[in-house]
Amino acid sequence: MSTIQSEQTSSTQGRLSDFLIGRPLETYTLAHQVISKKIGMAVFASDALSSTAYATEEILVILALTGSMAVLGLSIPIAIAICVLLAIVTISYRQTIFAYPNGGGAYIVARDNLGEVAAQIAGAALLTDYILTVAVSISSGVAQIVSAIPALEPFRVGMAVLVIAIMTLINLRGVKESGSVFAIPTYFFLGMMFLTLGVGFYRWATGTLGTVTGVTLTTEALAPLSMFLILRAFSSGSTALTGIEAISNGITAFSEPRSRNAARTLVVMSTILITLFMGITVLSRHIQAVPSHQETVISQLARTVYGNGSILYLLVIAGTALILLMAANTSYADFPRLAALHAGDGFLPRQLTFRGGRLVFSWGIMVLAAAATILVVLLRASTTALIPLYAIGVFLSFTVSQAGMVVRLRKVSKLQPGETVKGLETDLTYDPHWRFHMGVSAVGAVCTFIVMMIFAITKFMTGAWFILLLIPTLVFIFFRIHHHYKDVAHVLSLENAQYHIATEKVITILLIDSVHMGTVQMINFAKSLGTPWYALHVSVNPAKTEMVQVKWREFGGEGNLVIVQSPYRQLVAPIRAYMSQLLTDNPGAIVHVVMGHLAMSSLLTQALHQNSSLILNHALSGLERVVVTIVPLQVHHNGGEVNRNILTSGDLRRAREKRLASTSEEVETVEG
Amino acid sequence: MSTIQSEQTSSTQGRLSDFLIGRPLETYTLAHQVISKKIGMAVFASDALSSTAYATEEILVILALTGSMAVLGLSIPIAIAICVLLAIVTISYRQTIFAYPNGGGAYIVARDNLGEVAAQIAGAALLTDYILTVAVSISSGVAQIVSAIPALEPFRVGMAVLVIAIMTLINLRGVKESGSVFAIPTYFFLGMMFLTLGVGFYRWATGTLGTVTGVTLTTEALAPLSMFLILRAFSSGSTALTGIEAISNGITAFSEPRSRNAARTLVVMSTILITLFMGITVLSRHIQAVPSHQETVISQLARTVYGNGSILYLLVIAGTALILLMAANTSYADFPRLAALHAGDGFLPRQLTFRGGRLVFSWGIMVLAAAATILVVLLRASTTALIPLYAIGVFLSFTVSQAGMVVRLRKVSKLQPGETVKGLETDLTYDPHWRFHMGVSAVGAVCTFIVMMIFAITKFMTGAWFILLLIPTLVFIFFRIHHHYKDVAHVLSLENAQYHIATEKVITILLIDSVHMGTVQMINFAKSLGTPWYALHVSVNPAKTEMVQVKWREFGGEGNLVIVQSPYRQLVAPIRAYMSQLLTDNPGAIVHVVMGHLAMSSLLTQALHQNSSLILNHALSGLERVVVTIVPLQVHHNGGEVNRNILTSGDLRRAREKRLASTSEEVETVEG
Repeated sequence: MSTIQSEQTSSTQGRLSDFLIGRPLETYTLAHQVISKKIGMAVFASDALSSTAYATEEILVILALTGSMAVLGLSIPIAIAICVLLAIVTISYRQTIFAYPNGGGAYIVARDNLGEVAAQIAGAALLTDYILTVAVSISSGVAQIVSAIPALEPFRVGMAVLVIAIMTLINLRGVKESGSVFAIPTYFFLGMMFLTLGVGFYRWATGTLGTVTGVTLTTEALAPLSMFLILRAFSSGSTALTGIEAISNGITAFSEPRSRNAARTLVVMSTILITLFMGITVLSRHIQAVPSHQETVISQLARTVYGNGSILYLLVIAGTALILLMAANTSYADFPRLAALHAGDGFLPRQLTFRGGRLVFSWGIMVLAAAATILVVLLRASTTALIPLYAIGVFLSFTVSQAGMVVRLRKVSKLQPGETVKGLETDLTYDPHWRFHMGVSAVGAVCTFIVMMIFAITKFMTGAWFILLLIPTLVFIFFRIHHHYKDVAHVLSLENAQYHIATEKVITILLIDSVHMGTVQMINFAKSLGTPWYALHVSVNPAKTEMVQVKWREFGGEGNLVIVQSPYRQLVAPIRAYMSQLLTDNPGAIVHVVMGHLAMSSLLTQALHQNSSLILNHALSGLERVVVTIVPLQVHHNGGEVNRNILTSGDLRRAREKRLASTSEEVETVEG
Repeated sequence: MSTIQSEQTSSTQGRLSDFLIGRPLETYTLAHQVISKKIGMAVFASDALSSTAYATEEILVILALTGSMAVLGLSIPIAIAICVLLAIVTISYRQTIFAYPNGGGAYIVARDNLGEVAAQIAGAALLTDYILTVAVSISSGVAQIVSAIPALEPFRVGMAVLVIAIMTLINLRGVKESGSVFAIPTYFFLGMMFLTLGVGFYRWATGTLGTVTGVTLTTEALAPLSMFLILRAFSSGSTALTGIEAISNGITAFSEPRSRNAARTLVVMSTILITLFMGITVLSRHIQAVPSHQETVISQLARTVYGNGSILYLLVIAGTALILLMAANTSYADFPRLAALHAGDGFLPRQLTFRGGRLVFSWGIMVLAAAATILVVLLRASTTALIPLYAIGVFLSFTVSQAGMVVRLRKVSKLQPGETVKGLETDLTYDPHWRFHMGVSAVGAVCTFIVMMIFAITKFMTGAWFILLLIPTLVFIFFRIHHHYKDVAHVLSLENAQYHIATEKVITILLIDSVHMGTVQMINFAKSLGTPWYALHVSVNPAKTEMVQVKWREFGGEGNLVIVQSPYRQLVAPIRAYMSQLLTDNPGAIVHVVMGHLAMSSLLTQALHQNSSLILNHALSGLERVVVTIVPLQVHHNGGEVNRNILTSGDLRRAREKRLASTSEEVETVEG
């Protein structure tokens, strides 16, 4: 066996794509495409952190349904409960990160502990949510911009689609560079929010912080204060948790030691999240912020702290809008990675596992972009329409993942001290604190399950039904795809069936449309093979057929010509019928169909020709024991001058070899 | 040489298309797809007759610019002048129909007498105008419906597109059936118009016809009465002539004796046109109808004759709306026929000459539908925006056609009494009245040229510039296409170059992605050919390559395996580079690349596979002396059960033959 090192550069990829997404990267550089903790925060945390922009408001919106300002005070205990839930999930996911250093997303944890169905459910839920994250975040970010500049209102959908397109391009360049791009806005948002909270609490302490003016509580339909309402407010506020699973999926993107770096980033992120969320909720309560159609709670807060129209107020609003747009980027990091996992296991098209020129899962990025664009266009970039679809998937995956960890810890509980057992995904090591860890995971699983159920029930009519239909549908499709790949693998496998290498009779048939230089090439190829051959012409036009017969005679005995009549002017059907008959008459023989193809130098000129070889090739690929050979005749246009390159025209050989020599520079070393 | 009669039915075409456009027709039935004079009127006259719905109004709109009611009286002498022009063109075209019994459109007449450039100009002008006829007529018809039912206003563009779609389907069924469909509305319109004129003149004679009430003359910008204004009114009214060329293009659609039937239809049509046009203009003047944004002149006329809201009034409006929609059908009869003429001469893609299953030029119909749809969508189905583009093309083609007749008659003038000379298109026969005939054509050519110039000048800014740019652009593209076909024909020609039938060395290379049942088939094919061969694997994934090498060894010496490294994970570029090198090393040899292809039973399952053979086949077709063979492996799904059909698995042979026997019924007779 010989190995050849192909050293061709990216020049074959076209310069536009090089400009847009960068030059191709070699496979061995993959290990270098990892990120530091600081960049990791920016790449994976923007989704989670951006939820502080709306989580408090979501709680207040529900509580405001009572029509009572006093009830809004319940936002603080509810926020504390959510922070407890967040802490539980964080501790639980920290365990997961250490247990699964090669990536511990819900999909892997479920597959490892609960089996394929649970894994596919968790994966379908997450994939759905990643698409929604892009749609929701970008729509909401665009909405912020539009409320600041109302003149942009007619371009809302267009702007959202443009943002998706730009984000797609940035991500096709690769995760490291997109990390750098997104680090600035994430840290800018954090800086502005901490400044706002700091100044706010300082003014509160010094007694100079007033209350919100000019905003009034508006509720359309009054609801009594009930346990159900409080749970609803709690579940709405739980959107603060969306995005915290991102790091566990993306462990492999971190620099070594991966688990340690990823876990620290998770803890730092959750701490910041809790601080911001509680700070915003407490300050909002103090300034008596109310949910309003006209102004977001963040805006009310910033306005009260800094005063109307101050530069700092505008910077807070800008930072908030920006982080919402950036949140979408988390999905660009995670969706392709998760889709590649599904595809690698044969539950999604294999193409999703291919790394493109820039080592990213290009197909996954483009599928995400396409799905998000469709959602944004269909729902006219309306956050209100998108929100009820959102978050169910995340809480479903939380539940499945933590349930998986409970099962795993049950296995760990059976180990002797110091014992290590080889697991499916990672090793199982004795853990003296397994009871505590299992308790954390179990409590987390139960809590997130309850939140998911409340979500599904309270938002069923406004859109949750769609997700509750979509996830089982996706799981069904995933298993259908899996079934297909298993079937094909079975068909292809050499282990399960008898096969023998054998020599069969080959019947070579040249499909002749008319008699020209291309025909000469086809005849030369057939003669060179040395197998018996004859020509076949489908008669659509009697006059043309007569011409073909006359010209064929000029070849003088070079093979037999068979004419097939086609009264309905079809090409494919008579040829298929003829081949079927031939196969019946010659059991075991291989029918070798040879077709000419006029290869033009551009797509435009190619479209001027019938290209029947492509159609026929496809049509005949359904017949057994039929193989199809395409003999191209190159027609090059060089500024009006035409070159024909015929296999046999010896006088052109020199020019041809000259051209080949220039292309052969691409091949460098040939090793034996 | 042997001839085989393929008797397969239409079942291979799919049942949906059969349902929508009917079962395929055999070629020999073409002669029967002709129409009677009555149907001919409906097919070819609706465009011409529908112009009476707006021609009078167009004159009044221009005259009204003076702001004087008295000046509107000029409409009668202008209408008389237009009728004289119409009579001249009719007589002139009647001559053409007899001179060119196989179709005497401007394209053929120009090609026969003035050369290819004139023919392409006339053709481009007419093709443009046919597209505009569809767009204008349907937009105007929809506008009529919308003014009757204002609630439909938001669906204007959608309705127009829907009408185009329905008309396209009807025409894909074939001209005869579409003739029957369109006969009813054409005759309904004629009936309603003649009734209206009859009742109108009767009431005038008996003194019971009043004048229009409730409509006032409104003009935005006043213009003085001048010769230029009168010429503008004359040229605007000349839109009445659009469509009268249709019959001369469509002579072959008439039953024998073609020329006689077509000529009679033309005369009857022009007579009706003149009668309606003069009748409407005279009656409109008498009732003092004025151009108005709120109400069409036809509506004012019908309302005055029948009284407000009467059933007959509504029927006139319905008939007018209908004939406008039907007018588009004339273009569906003529555009594909003219495009096929261009394509037959190599000035448009050859595909336009193919007759589809129903013997119509399906490609032409679809190109017309697509172009008209784009126009309607871009200009939002606005007749106002479309009208200035319209009619220039028709008058340009009138001019070219009649100039061509003048040239032809000059040749005739040189003949002796009784002499007949063979012409390019048809015979030239001695004509004792050549002077009179030439005079008619010359006067017609000059008049239509003047009208065209006035049109172009007065409507230049509002849209005519686009057509004045478009027609030369189209002519340029037509000649580029022609140049391309001539080049390719030169390359393919066996006359212009030396060629020799020769046996060359064939190097067969099997492209191996992995080792499976498909590989067995490829090896069997290569072995069966008996030419030297080896296998090539492009290494994208080192782990996979190792597996391929191990599995290859299991074959035990069946051919050599070469590995090509691809560090950028590309497939096409390394293979191309390898083949180029091989061609350089083996001058004169044919490189025979064999690829496997997993052929699935549906497009959906096919999309789950990489289908790299299709991509590679395309990429390698640009290399000289490289031929590509595709060895398909069929994977059939039958309700969960998978069949694999391997060339060599003898145990499946019986089942396979059983299946083949059932399809072989399609092939009936084999003649030696």
